[in-house]
Amino acid sequence: MMILIVGGVAGGASAAARARRLSKEAEIVMIERGSHPSFANCGMPYYIGGTIESRNKLLVSPIERLRNRYRLDVRVRESVESIDRAKKQVLIKRLDTGEEYTESYDKLILAPGAAPFKPPIPGIDLPGIYTLRNLEDADQLAAATEGAERAVIIGGGFIGIEMAENLVHRGLETSLVELSPQILPPWDAEMVAPLEQLLRDRGVKLHLGDSATEFRQVGEGLEVVMNSGATIMADFVVLSIGVRPENTLAVKAELDVAERGGIQVNRHQQTSDADIYAVGDAIEVTDVVSGTPVQIPLAGPANRQGRIAADHIFGRASQYRGTQGTAIVGLWDQGAAMTGLSEKVCQRLGLDYEKVYLHPGDHAGYYPGATSMAMKILFDPTSGKLLGGQVVGKRGIDKRVDVLAIALQAGMSVMDLEESELAYAPQYGSAKDPINMAGFIASGVVRGDHPVAHSTQLVADKLQDVTLLDVRTPEEFAAGAIPGSTNVPLDVLRNELNSIPKDKPVVAYCKVGQRGYMATRILMLEGYDVRNLSGGYTTYTQVAAASKK
Amino acid sequence: MMILIVGGVAGGASAAARARRLSKEAEIVMIERGSHPSFANCGMPYYIGGTIESRNKLLVSPIERLRNRYRLDVRVRESVESIDRAKKQVLIKRLDTGEEYTESYDKLILAPGAAPFKPPIPGIDLPGIYTLRNLEDADQLAAATEGAERAVIIGGGFIGIEMAENLVHRGLETSLVELSPQILPPWDAEMVAPLEQLLRDRGVKLHLGDSATEFRQVGEGLEVVMNSGATIMADFVVLSIGVRPENTLAVKAELDVAERGGIQVNRHQQTSDADIYAVGDAIEVTDVVSGTPVQIPLAGPANRQGRIAADHIFGRASQYRGTQGTAIVGLWDQGAAMTGLSEKVCQRLGLDYEKVYLHPGDHAGYYPGATSMAMKILFDPTSGKLLGGQVVGKRGIDKRVDVLAIALQAGMSVMDLEESELAYAPQYGSAKDPINMAGFIASGVVRGDHPVAHSTQLVADKLQDVTLLDVRTPEEFAAGAIPGSTNVPLDVLRNELNSIPKDKPVVAYCKVGQRGYMATRILMLEGYDVRNLSGGYTTYTQVAAASKK
Repeated sequence: MMILIVGGVAGGASAAARARRLSKEAEIVMIERGSHPSFANCGMPYYIGGTIESRNKLLVSPIERLRNRYRLDVRVRESVESIDRAKKQVLIKRLDTGEEYTESYDKLILAPGAAPFKPPIPGIDLPGIYTLRNLEDADQLAAATEGAERAVIIGGGFIGIEMAENLVHRGLETSLVELSPQILPPWDAEMVAPLEQLLRDRGVKLHLGDSATEFRQVGEGLEVVMNSGATIMADFVVLSIGVRPENTLAVKAELDVAERGGIQVNRHQQTSDADIYAVGDAIEVTDVVSGTPVQIPLAGPANRQGRIAADHIFGRASQYRGTQGTAIVGLWDQGAAMTGLSEKVCQRLGLDYEKVYLHPGDHAGYYPGATSMAMKILFDPTSGKLLGGQVVGKRGIDKRVDVLAIALQAGMSVMDLEESELAYAPQYGSAKDPINMAGFIASGVVRGDHPVAHSTQLVADKLQDVTLLDVRTPEEFAAGAIPGSTNVPLDVLRNELNSIPKDKPVVAYCKVGQRGYMATRILMLEGYDVRNLSGGYTTYTQVAAASKK
Repeated sequence: MMILIVGGVAGGASAAARARRLSKEAEIVMIERGSHPSFANCGMPYYIGGTIESRNKLLVSPIERLRNRYRLDVRVRESVESIDRAKKQVLIKRLDTGEEYTESYDKLILAPGAAPFKPPIPGIDLPGIYTLRNLEDADQLAAATEGAERAVIIGGGFIGIEMAENLVHRGLETSLVELSPQILPPWDAEMVAPLEQLLRDRGVKLHLGDSATEFRQVGEGLEVVMNSGATIMADFVVLSIGVRPENTLAVKAELDVAERGGIQVNRHQQTSDADIYAVGDAIEVTDVVSGTPVQIPLAGPANRQGRIAADHIFGRASQYRGTQGTAIVGLWDQGAAMTGLSEKVCQRLGLDYEKVYLHPGDHAGYYPGATSMAMKILFDPTSGKLLGGQVVGKRGIDKRVDVLAIALQAGMSVMDLEESELAYAPQYGSAKDPINMAGFIASGVVRGDHPVAHSTQLVADKLQDVTLLDVRTPEEFAAGAIPGSTNVPLDVLRNELNSIPKDKPVVAYCKVGQRGYMATRILMLEGYDVRNLSGGYTTYTQVAAASKK
């Protein structure tokens, strides 16, 4: 059995290791275009920023180990140029000499990854414009930061904001340009508004809703010309506007490729040619929550797919269950995490959904060091089935998203989250964990006990002719409130019912939604048509910030 | 509707708040024996230790708020003495005056909690012997630490070890006496061995497998006489050897009470009298994994049960699904977490189970600050259904146990954990999260790809006549290895097969099990009868430490 693997990073390396564990005889050849197979590409921004001090740290499995331990025939600085499916051969080019040779295969695994997208705009190929894909790129970018003073990052996704943090860490004046009106497009805009503020607070110049239209060499530097007409000067530019599946080989070999460029595979990772598998960033996968095709360039799924391809080659029925879009990104002491569908995806797909916001602490408030997080839960308004979750904050966001990820995998509802028994000690959580709280709140909505209104409706002027009732204390109200609201503190609400008209709907709110919920219950039991503004004033300020850009 | 609630902490307070949210008319009377309803009892050790500086922090809901916001009739320093079920009345005593009066109820909710157990040994009532149940106890203990130099803690459960940390924090010479041969009896012994070492490293004198048989007044101090004959002098003693359900009222009222003392309730929290509910530490619940009755004195379940009782009173069908034994405890910068069944419970119940150990990092090793954790997963050896998990370490233990808790709630198998899509960025996790790793390893065992042996068998001398093969490097081997093992480093294993006899079983091991797994695969494919020592040398040292006590 001759297994030939194109690409030696996450998916390719996992496939190779798994294949060797299943077979002592198989010849396993791994062709890697770069100098290093199996490196930690998610660490590159932190290597450039200096948090990861040694480049060696990024070499997950040194070549020698792959050769000795896994008996892999690892060939670096070589590129597979074409596939002859009839002959089951590939044409390989040695990048340093230009020499070409052919190699046969019984099974071929394509794990070529995805390439940073370079838009076809004037000046795109000027020196000083970098992308970040492999260790050589990281080395070049690290070198570019030496002595540099100003950098421009094009693209505010994962790598864009990680690079922003790391370039600031390097002492550079950093600008970030993002076409959409928010950073981190997979998340909903209001959820990442605090991270945009964090970037600004740390000195990053954010240009949201703008894009680069031209790069010009000006003296030693580069001038970035933007769609808005503004220009930014930089010593170098980082392009991080997304990646495109590396499908050249697949297209040339006439394998099925999806409209958006991902190589199409079945659940065993087989392409339209049963002897050719494809894994990782180059393929299209199915989102298990929505059932729609997506591309998810992330290491976890790539590793899993690599294992599955190797399993299937050796007669095992392993299947990839699809992706659920779990992701996380750190930004200084904060971060954003998500799993499942965002609200914008629910809207795009025309799904019937409801949402709740909350701002729980990462651990018990009475124990020192608690910080609050913003959480958004999307669910089916009738069955309560979980559709997705987003968590943004300082601590404990990874835990809550991982718990939601498992709940989503299991097909749980928000009612199940009410009943979850999670670990509580004051350093770690709360007797009512944020997950339970999310369950309580969302289940209350499903059961009709807790009607909610949303700041997104308020800001879009869709909540007209309501009494907007601020049930916080007069001090909180004086420090900042939603325009048009009236202050009736919760603890005197029962005595002030006469001042609240019963002939039009009431929208109650507090700081985060807890007192607003109690106010809603009190007014409901008094016969009012009342809703609680989900997430309270805190979510309102996030929504307002997101809408003002 | 007149609802009378006995006890105003977790379960009682939750029931009261929920009842008010469901009804504006109900009269809700809460009788609390102490001075403060709704206080954070899990914070008391940290208040005594000074980590929580202000006592006010522990008052979750001040009485005034309960009265104004929830319109509760809160009566503190009062005790319910008896129940007249026929008349639906209770007899209440005012503790400060001794006065007694009766109060009627439509529905009665018993939330009296559990009382620290005081063994009937000589001197148990001497001054200077404290238990920790309410804020007055915490105040007394905090006062006792002033000017004291030596303390003895009897009992090494949650509160015992939390008190040990906090008394050390206060500068006291602290001894801890625990009857069983390990601290934290709900966990398996080998898993908490590192925490026992931590206690010793921080200066706590551990007396495991010993117990107090007498307390004597000696001058200003107390002498603790132990079963072993040893004695310890102390300025004061903390008794934390467990709690007993407070069932006096229930027994007097002839409600059904289980053999072990817990009040018996149905899924709606009703006792054998349909108008009397019971919640929290005083009741017996069902373990959902094993189906057996247990007592779980924890705040999370108590809160949930309180809500359910109130729901049911107002005609809702809410049910308590039972407990799964999720728990966590911190100890300085480390901690222990668990969910589901321990191995000792599996054994006691005669369950067919298998286990794996692993020692993954809390986040990617290439990103600074990663620490390793010890993880133990118990599962059905045929179906792979998850039975329980334990995680001990510095960081990320709460996250992994919460993920396991949800997986257990969902009835997932270890194969599901292989496929879990968890959040990965280098600060937060790994592309193959510890949960995925646990899934890979355990699934490999279920599928027969990865036979395992256990250090518990080795230490109990149940692995005789095997070749014990250390596949680590010669340097690691020289620094400490399992007695009787031979060193053949993994990377030369294929060349050294001649030196490994094929006619008897091989047990391979490395540091944590990863290289041992590869060695096992290599030898299996060569036709050996081979098993990997689960968790490697690291687990071996924990098992050896636990067996030597």
